[in-house]
Amino acid sequence: MTKFGKHIDQSLRSLGQQALKIAVEDANINMSQIDAAYIGNAMAGVIWGQESIRGQVVLAGTGIEGIPIFNIENACASGSSAFHLAWQAVATGVHDVVLALGVEKLYHEDKTKTFNAFKGSTDVESLNQFPGGGDDTSQSIFMNVYAREAREHMNKYGTKIETIAKVAVKNSYNGSLNPLAQYQTPKSLNTIMNSRMISDPIRLLMCSPIGDGAAAVIVCSEKFARKYTSNPIYIASSVVLSGRGHREDIDKGKVRAITKAYEMAGLGAEDLDVVEVHDGGASGEIWAYEHLQLCPEGQAGELLLSGETEIGGRIPVNPSGGLLAKGHPVGATGIAQLAEIVWQLRGQAGKRQVRNAAKVGLTHNNGGYLYGDSGAAAINVLTK
Amino acid sequence: MTKFGKHIDQSLRSLGQQALKIAVEDANINMSQIDAAYIGNAMAGVIWGQESIRGQVVLAGTGIEGIPIFNIENACASGSSAFHLAWQAVATGVHDVVLALGVEKLYHEDKTKTFNAFKGSTDVESLNQFPGGGDDTSQSIFMNVYAREAREHMNKYGTKIETIAKVAVKNSYNGSLNPLAQYQTPKSLNTIMNSRMISDPIRLLMCSPIGDGAAAVIVCSEKFARKYTSNPIYIASSVVLSGRGHREDIDKGKVRAITKAYEMAGLGAEDLDVVEVHDGGASGEIWAYEHLQLCPEGQAGELLLSGETEIGGRIPVNPSGGLLAKGHPVGATGIAQLAEIVWQLRGQAGKRQVRNAAKVGLTHNNGGYLYGDSGAAAINVLTK
Repeated sequence: MTKFGKHIDQSLRSLGQQALKIAVEDANINMSQIDAAYIGNAMAGVIWGQESIRGQVVLAGTGIEGIPIFNIENACASGSSAFHLAWQAVATGVHDVVLALGVEKLYHEDKTKTFNAFKGSTDVESLNQFPGGGDDTSQSIFMNVYAREAREHMNKYGTKIETIAKVAVKNSYNGSLNPLAQYQTPKSLNTIMNSRMISDPIRLLMCSPIGDGAAAVIVCSEKFARKYTSNPIYIASSVVLSGRGHREDIDKGKVRAITKAYEMAGLGAEDLDVVEVHDGGASGEIWAYEHLQLCPEGQAGELLLSGETEIGGRIPVNPSGGLLAKGHPVGATGIAQLAEIVWQLRGQAGKRQVRNAAKVGLTHNNGGYLYGDSGAAAINVLTK
Repeated sequence: MTKFGKHIDQSLRSLGQQALKIAVEDANINMSQIDAAYIGNAMAGVIWGQESIRGQVVLAGTGIEGIPIFNIENACASGSSAFHLAWQAVATGVHDVVLALGVEKLYHEDKTKTFNAFKGSTDVESLNQFPGGGDDTSQSIFMNVYAREAREHMNKYGTKIETIAKVAVKNSYNGSLNPLAQYQTPKSLNTIMNSRMISDPIRLLMCSPIGDGAAAVIVCSEKFARKYTSNPIYIASSVVLSGRGHREDIDKGKVRAITKAYEMAGLGAEDLDVVEVHDGGASGEIWAYEHLQLCPEGQAGELLLSGETEIGGRIPVNPSGGLLAKGHPVGATGIAQLAEIVWQLRGQAGKRQVRNAAKVGLTHNNGGYLYGDSGAAAINVLTK
């Protein structure tokens, strides 16, 4: 992956090709060995007018041409969706070596373009379905969703907002150990609780930032991998499910994807050594603990406060810094989560390496919002 | 498919759901039997601000929820690309019954939005790569590509512009037999040759129109199909390849996709009974005759003039009216081509039914433009 951050002088292409080059070199292969490419991007149409053949544009001149190239969208889960189709093509024997690449460039001098792009991740004709409505052009409307989720956990389980804010304390510290993170400064609880209110009770430093960046992975058959590496990382399961609209349980889609991913992998929460979750807002990580069954229902706050999800804990969550600190260039996020898990499983995560030799990791990525549920919920389980 | 045309009062959702309902009823299944959905749309981001989760938005409320939904783009080949991934999922046994749906809404009161969306089907940062440049906001810049292709055929083989115009004569007649076509009035050579010049030598009536519409197909395993129908249509091959940029031969990508599709199907041009080709401009059909090997190189004009590609001829091309008359709501086009071939193979094409009982049909769909080649070339061979 590229460093995530504000890359005003970079284009979608230069960001994408930077990640591609790193992935191809890491895999020790040539561009010409890639049989197909699955490109995730969610917002270049609204922000940059670059729609329709984004992947071909990003890959032009690399030699990755003349093969099947598919442009895949699922909002904040676009990267994971591209990866899922890449995995499926290899797992079913259609292709031997494929590329999954996610790229996003959110910074634009006209901020309304960026905020409008986030609206494009819901039903633009029914923005009034949104908690708080969709007419607030001063911010990403998605923070209204995280605010609602925060209030729900607080009301239902008595969780304090300070506890939710401590997700951001942890992840900002983790980000300070990640040279590719957008923000590398640890933030205190006090600083976070005094940052500007965005959508009550979510404050600025409990929100993932606007950012630019790209990430790429090479997915190949085991036979191919064995020729190039002695320590391949395996995909134990990969699941993408859309949410169920018009239902009471807002998290049904997410939970179903997790259950399916555990079943497919033949593994459970107790087997996980490291996890990257979708903390678009700090409350996202709180709910994820319970959905992933890292703790019983209602006890996510306790799990966080116990320190067990810190890098040195029993089940480290978001050692990369997560979306809150590493950043969230939308289409790149899911693949950057996979990159982090690969590095953690290989023992290449530097200062943020989880303590024990990790053998099983999981990525949890959600995209879009539609009538009370995710547009897409994506879970991957990786093993070494 | 829906009728193609100007549907000002319809939304992406209402168009998409209309096609979905027709497809599901035709297949005699329930919405709940669909295991996954692949949605093709190319331009709703730029035109409508609806990006990221277009498929989920279109399908909301239909009961097609909680399954994998993938949003697929490849410019004018978006529908075919969605179909290809749908086919692949069934062919490899990942899913048993899936939906491929293409939908587009191009008419907007602000025409510059629509024209900008077409720019998004090339590299927006390098529009000067375009023949004639990309700064003409008065029309779809793609007509400059068709104009260049027309000039090439004229210069290389002495083809007359009146011959190329006769593609539009034929297809406007075919469209007059198709109740779902956007234009159902036969046009004379004289009318076409006197229509406004768009990009020399391509005139208005040699261009596919702006339009709205949707089309859907149900793809399933043979075992499943046998339970619901005694006359299934088989997918003999499905190919999507991106073009090769920076190369001299502009059509290399298209020709490679055709060759691969014939090989995969174990069939050749001589086996085809009916073909739908990508006549975004009239010159597109001329070149397609040769790429598909319906005639030797340089003899496309003669083939057209012989009448053999008319509905009553040896190898009818675009009996639906093609993009020129049936219309070209971008993301829907590839799937509408498949619908036409299915109807022709079933003998359900009404007044435009090809003469002999057709057994083998082909769709030819291209998308986007990048440095002298297609962004994506998609070919499907169907048999009964």
